Amino acid sequence: MHPLDAADPLRGYRDRFVPGDGLVAYLDGNSLGRPLRASVERLERFAREEWGGRLIRGWDEGWLELPLALGDELGAHVLGAAPGQVAVADSTSVLIYKLARAAVDARPGRDEVLLDRGNFPSDRYLLEGIAAERGLTLRWLDPDPAGGVTPEAVADAVSERTALGLFSSVAYRSGFLADAPAITATLHDAGALAMWDLCHSAGVVPTSLDAWGVDLAVGCGYKYLNGGPGAPAFLYVRRELQGELRQPIHGWIGSRAPFEMGQGYEPADGIRSFLTGTPPIVAMQPLVDMLALLAEVGIDAVRAKSVALTEHAIRLVDGELPDARLASPRDPARRGGHVTIDHPRFAQLLPALWSAGIIPDFRRPDGLRLGCSPLSTSFAELEAGVAAIRDALAA
Amino acid sequence: MHPLDAADPLRGYRDRFVPGDGLVAYLDGNSLGRPLRASVERLERFAREEWGGRLIRGWDEGWLELPLALGDELGAHVLGAAPGQVAVADSTSVLIYKLARAAVDARPGRDEVLLDRGNFPSDRYLLEGIAAERGLTLRWLDPDPAGGVTPEAVADAVSERTALGLFSSVAYRSGFLADAPAITATLHDAGALAMWDLCHSAGVVPTSLDAWGVDLAVGCGYKYLNGGPGAPAFLYVRRELQGELRQPIHGWIGSRAPFEMGQGYEPADGIRSFLTGTPPIVAMQPLVDMLALLAEVGIDAVRAKSVALTEHAIRLVDGELPDARLASPRDPARRGGHVTIDHPRFAQLLPALWSAGIIPDFRRPDGLRLGCSPLSTSFAELEAGVAAIRDALAA
Repeated sequence: MHPLDAADPLRGYRDRFVPGDGLVAYLDGNSLGRPLRASVERLERFAREEWGGRLIRGWDEGWLELPLALGDELGAHVLGAAPGQVAVADSTSVLIYKLARAAVDARPGRDEVLLDRGNFPSDRYLLEGIAAERGLTLRWLDPDPAGGVTPEAVADAVSERTALGLFSSVAYRSGFLADAPAITATLHDAGALAMWDLCHSAGVVPTSLDAWGVDLAVGCGYKYLNGGPGAPAFLYVRRELQGELRQPIHGWIGSRAPFEMGQGYEPADGIRSFLTGTPPIVAMQPLVDMLALLAEVGIDAVRAKSVALTEHAIRLVDGELPDARLASPRDPARRGGHVTIDHPRFAQLLPALWSAGIIPDFRRPDGLRLGCSPLSTSFAELEAGVAAIRDALAA
Repeated sequence: MHPLDAADPLRGYRDRFVPGDGLVAYLDGNSLGRPLRASVERLERFAREEWGGRLIRGWDEGWLELPLALGDELGAHVLGAAPGQVAVADSTSVLIYKLARAAVDARPGRDEVLLDRGNFPSDRYLLEGIAAERGLTLRWLDPDPAGGVTPEAVADAVSERTALGLFSSVAYRSGFLADAPAITATLHDAGALAMWDLCHSAGVVPTSLDAWGVDLAVGCGYKYLNGGPGAPAFLYVRRELQGELRQPIHGWIGSRAPFEMGQGYEPADGIRSFLTGTPPIVAMQPLVDMLALLAEVGIDAVRAKSVALTEHAIRLVDGELPDARLASPRDPARRGGHVTIDHPRFAQLLPALWSAGIIPDFRRPDGLRLGCSPLSTSFAELEAGVAAIRDALAA
């Protein structure tokens, strides 16, 4: 056993995941987390016993509450949020639309939204659309050279015109970890709302949404939360704002009394008003297991291993890939769960690596992301992955 | 064997569904379809082999195309739509928002939307919200006594002010089957767009969206398409409108080149521009099996058995439940896949029926829906259900 694995208190958890056939090094848990064995069993059991056995009765026996129950688990073990502020629903993109619309509509005297070019495409595209339909101006921050947004850049851009700032906690390309509490405070000082995209941090970087005073957040269920491809997303709305903010997509599940089926939409109380359609119960099943595992391990222990993995990844890159350029921060306090390296030949090498079971992912124009999902990635696996990239570059 | 089951050419298909433990009569396939055994196996196998084995490579190996591939299957075997006009995504409610916004924004000189009080709550609530945000007036049709909308009522209400009419093919409460081709033509004669909610018809009543000239449609994956609780929904946009209509929720999957991750949203060509977030791949799995089964059986055979089942349900109600009021049309040509009966004591009887494995569903104020899902419901089961309701009323 690799000495770093031997010293890793979390090494045993790796066996809880499905062993992929022919998988040598999976370095893309930041894009799609691996399934827990428990989730494979749960999907089969849920379909046979609950869907097939309880049928429509299941809605009264827990399904209807599952979006909020899982949301509370997420809040407690991953997000630093007290109950009643998190729900699982829709996709990240749809949730960004709902929350950003609610935010800018709640600040009608303000006509600017701050965001940065390093945000994931959906975040940028959605806000461009919202700006066009609501008559707002987008004010773009230039990300710093490591590809993330800083409190100083936000302070320079924010003003009494700012309705909302939407930023990524961890930048999807560079892995830059933003100083979310400082940026949130800077936005609040100017009277603006603060919204965070947690897609690349939820489940790997601790957040304290309540303590930081964050207003709104969204995040992804299929990366470090291992919910499976296209898993439902989650949203957070600070309790104090829930009565004030109104999202625009008025479905029956967000109404006060869905089974009354009455005339006239009246929003539910609390976080439920941010839901829309019938909750995706089958698709939520794998999240149940990963949230239970995160509760068992603790997010701080996950973060400690994440830092150890990315530190080791950078040591390996420095030693074995001298021609690659590190595109992620060297300071672990400013780095999320993945490390990005650039090299002009990476695009060309990727198909052969994938065929050989070495799976990083590629981000244009020339970046490989080495994603380290702390509960399923070993140090030996990371070394095998970097060695294969070295050999491919040398060949 | 009941003689009607003995004469039923589709009776053998019932064995393909998971036998629910303690289930005596499941009469709610119109609300939540039962799982196919093949779907239970597929979910397990997908999670272990595809998600767990192919991991991120799965996106290049078919997942990214799955929303459109399943859409084409739906179009071919269920909706009467040529390829490239149907996609699986989101929830019905979110899709109604996207398509109705696209429709009214494409008819800026027109300021009215037609709909009726018998539409499902989400349809009504969503259009109320859209009307408020876009400065439109909703023009409500009074449904006829059987609870559905007629071509005559639409002709009376439509005008050069009408941007869009949104109606349910089969009314969720009464089961009234609208004359969709005539209503679509009436809307078109006035220059309005026609949008159909197919939630209660897709998979049980044949539709010919292309032949009828329908502009837009949405529908549900978890009723007669047996996708599981909260399964993804589907949308249809007539090919000629795809370049003109622009939906407002601009996510990366609806953009021209998602993996370029470039600056500035540019919609994809064709039906893909109506997608938003990462496709719900796990949640789509059960739909694969049910669409294959519908292709095998043929929607016309399904409809023939559906009519036979609802005819028999009405005979049973007439004979055994003389105090109940039939709230669905007697004319099978105007009736979908379920039959609704009203009685002031139904609400009170439901819990005991459910406990005994007799599962219709309840709709306020006093209706039971007897849903007959043709591939999983037997005539004997229907008789057992009505007999149990009779006995409960007598007790």
